[in-house]
Order: sequence, then structure tokens, then C-alpha cells
Amino acid sequence: VTQRRPATETSASVGRARALARRSVREKTGTFLVEGPQGAREALAFGDVVELFVTTGAQERYPDLLDSAQDVDCRIWDVDDDVFAQLSDTVTPQGIAAIARKPVASLAGVAAVEPTLVAILVEAQDPGNVGTVIRIAAAAGAQAVVLTTGSVDPFNPKVVRSTVGAIFHIPIVTGVDFAESAEVLGAAGLKTIATSGYAASRLFDAEVEAMLADPTAWVFGNEARGLPEQVVADCDLALAVPIFGTVESLNLATAAAVCLYSSARQQR
Amino acid sequence: VTQRRPATETSASVGRARALARRSVREKTGTFLVEGPQGAREALAFGDVVELFVTTGAQERYPDLLDSAQDVDCRIWDVDDDVFAQLSDTVTPQGIAAIARKPVASLAGVAAVEPTLVAILVEAQDPGNVGTVIRIAAAAGAQAVVLTTGSVDPFNPKVVRSTVGAIFHIPIVTGVDFAESAEVLGAAGLKTIATSGYAASRLFDAEVEAMLADPTAWVFGNEARGLPEQVVADCDLALAVPIFGTVESLNLATAAAVCLYSSARQQR
Repeated sequence: VTQRRPATETSASVGRARALARRSVREKTGTFLVEGPQGAREALAFGDVVELFVTTGAQERYPDLLDSAQDVDCRIWDVDDDVFAQLSDTVTPQGIAAIARKPVASLAGVAAVEPTLVAILVEAQDPGNVGTVIRIAAAAGAQAVVLTTGSVDPFNPKVVRSTVGAIFHIPIVTGVDFAESAEVLGAAGLKTIATSGYAASRLFDAEVEAMLADPTAWVFGNEARGLPEQVVADCDLALAVPIFGTVESLNLATAAAVCLYSSARQQR
Repeated sequence: VTQRRPATETSASVGRARALARRSVREKTGTFLVEGPQGAREALAFGDVVELFVTTGAQERYPDLLDSAQDVDCRIWDVDDDVFAQLSDTVTPQGIAAIARKPVASLAGVAAVEPTLVAILVEAQDPGNVGTVIRIAAAAGAQAVVLTTGSVDPFNPKVVRSTVGAIFHIPIVTGVDFAESAEVLGAAGLKTIATSGYAASRLFDAEVEAMLADPTAWVFGNEARGLPEQVVADCDLALAVPIFGTVESLNLATAAAVCLYSSARQQR
């Protein structure tokens, strides 16, 4: 299906793919790397793929992806396993990866769709957690995720992998601070709810549940430090996810799953 | 606070700790390794610690842990950073680890406490996911987690780390199959609810919500394959966690967070 290109050309393209491990290169080129069959499938169907790398083994395993790629205006590189390993970020490469253009999103764009559910992550750092929260937000039907300045780049390969393709299904706004996000989304009619283990009100309290039917922007903090006090104070409401057993805390993705699905439940 | 022991003694004890990376050794000795300050803190307070390893740096960082250890009948080993690195399973060792006796749990013991919420994991393999589900189950107030035969060992260091100490707060039953678990917990009054993306009924359906107030054992499948059809058929009910946006699926920990917290909400 694919034609093997001259080694020098292939080598240059693999170098480009590999360089996308660096944030500065992603920002300069406006592209990012999506590894693995599920990610590549979503990228081809819903994203803007520029280049596709496939090993011979992957061409046999995922013929549907090669078919999709024919319909897309992208270059396809037929590479050997050892060459693919050079661009791969994983221990067990699956033989397929795409370079895609970064989807563009802005607070103004999000506000324009009259959103009812948004997740704001304040200085979230752990790539696996952030990718999982993006996937949860998309599943819960949120219209956007906002990652404030100081957060991990959502186009980091580890984040992308953890989203399992969801990065192509929900707008992700970056490069804004919390105050600006709260202002724009507040003007669009969303209430901001901070999640904090110290909050006096708890999710599932009867008076809280009814409020979740309203348009809501949930605000989640850093995995280790939680939310800055000032952010909690600036939100319309602060809530704790109740802990019924003997554990210190919940992780970010668990809190996001419980909160975003609680809103989804009340809003439908 | 601690006395440095002869190098040969220390070396033998570090060898014991290191060997606990192997399941066979954990089973033979009935002990497991708990790394990091939070895990060690919970182990000292709620577990049965036999030996504690601390670097000089960790003694200074976590003086409270040394105090707790004095009150426990355990041997304390003062080890150098490079020696500690040998027993550590992590890339950035935090200088403190405990060998603890494995808590014992059985289906009969769980049934005896008249449980209202239990999580059954059928052939779950991913250590991080399983550890996170144990932490979620403890937080949601479940009385036990059952890991059926063919699942990852919950005392695997990666699972233990992902529980962030919760492994000491909730009984974890292993070495039983699904049929036996369903029989014993069914006799104890619990309904079994299978989670399946293909189920016709969905969590949040009005008629489903009321049922969640009853004693429930949630049944979750393998991360990649889901539940075997026969297990779904043998459960009292099968439910899908609704997906409101465009994603293929939810991961195991997300599904567990939404389901277990939905029960907790209805039961309180």
C-alpha cells in the first residue's frame, strides 16, 4: 500500500517526529505526535494528520488505518521496527504514529458554544493524570478543558497517550490564567466550583446536588498541592468530594470522574 | 535515633526486601514491601511492620515516622542512599520502605461484617489501575475488594504504591474465582452488578438509581477485554456507565469511581 521512500528522506522525517517530544518544537511547528493504533485512528478520523509512520507489521495489523490514511492528504512513511523505535516514546512501540496539527481552542471559542460543563485544571503537572482527566471530561460530555499557565502541555506524548484519542474530541484551552478563565466563563453563565478537601460543603449534600444542574466550571488543583487558597476563595462555591472510608485523599482523576459525572447526571 | 548495624546484616536484610519484588517470595514469606513516606506511615499506624529501611536523609525528612517505628516491634535499618536504591522499585527513591506482613482477608470474613458495598475485579492486570481502584473503594466506604484468580497480586510493589496506603484500610480477598465470590456475597445479601459498555441499562437511569441503595457488589472486568460474557450473564444486573461525549470507552479506575460513588451516594 505504501511506497518506501529514500532512506535520507525517511531519516529526516523520523527526526522531525522525534523532535516533537520537546515542547518548544511542538509550539514552533504547531504539530504533535500521536502514538499507537487508537490514537492514530482518532487522529485520522477527527484530527489533521500531516505525516504517518507505519512499520510493516503495523500495516498488516491495522489495514483499516492505512485505508483511512489514503483518504487524507498526509505523507505515509514505511519504516523498519528499529527506525520506529527511535521516534517512539513507549517501551513497547506499536508500530504506528502520526504527526498531527494541534487543534486550536480559545476561551472565547468555548464561551461562544454556550457551554454547560467545563473542567479547569490549575497548574496540573502529572501527564497521566491530565490525560485521564481530558478523557473523563470528554466522556462526561464537557464542552472544554482549560489548562492554566503552569500546567503540563496537553500535547506532551504522555498526556496524548493517556487521553486515548479524546484529545481530538474536546477543545483544550491553554496559556490562560485562572482569573481570566473564571471571568470569561463566568460571563458565559457558568458557576465556578472549586474542589478542595477542606471545603465545608460536600458533593452529594442535598442543597448542592440541585445546583449541579446549572452550567458549571469545575476547578481542580495540582496533584500534590491542591488549589491555591486564592483560587478557592475566588470561586462561586467550594466542595469536597466526601471520603467515607479511611484514606487520606483522592487522586485528581478520581475527583474529576466523580464531580464531572455528578454534573452530567444532574444536567440530563 | 537508629543504630547502624554491621554491613553483612544490612546486606542480608536489603536482599530480603529486594526479593519481595517477586510474587513467589511474597507468598512464601507472607510479607510485602511498602515504599515511600505515606505508605510507610500507614503501614506503621495500621499494618504489621517487621522491618523498616531508612536513609539518613529520610530520617531527617520524616522524624514522625522514626517516632512511630520506636513504638512498633520492628527492626530499623539505617542504610545509605546507594544501598536503598537496590531495594527500591522507583526511579526516584524517597529513602524509606517497610517490610510488612500481608493483611489476611477471606470471603467468609467479608460476608460476616454484613457488607453493603464491595468491588469485585475479574482478571484485572494493570497494577496502577488496580491500586487506584483499591484506593477508590476504600474512599467510597466499600468494605472489601475481591481480586479473582488471574488478577495481578495486590501486594505487587506497583499496586501497593498506587493504593497510597489504602491497602491497610480495606480487606482485599484473592485466590477465589468469580462464581465463588458471587455465591458467598449473594448469600450475604449483596446484588451483583456487572459493568459492561454493551449493557442496555445505564447508571443514572431512574429505575437503576433506587436499586443502588441496596447492598451491592460491583463487578469490573479486565482493562482491555472487559468482563467475560458468562460473568455478565451470571450477575443480577448489568449496567453501562453512560458516555455523553465522543470517546470509545472509560478506563477501569474511572468506571469504578463513578459506580462506587454512585452507590455511596444512594446508600447514605
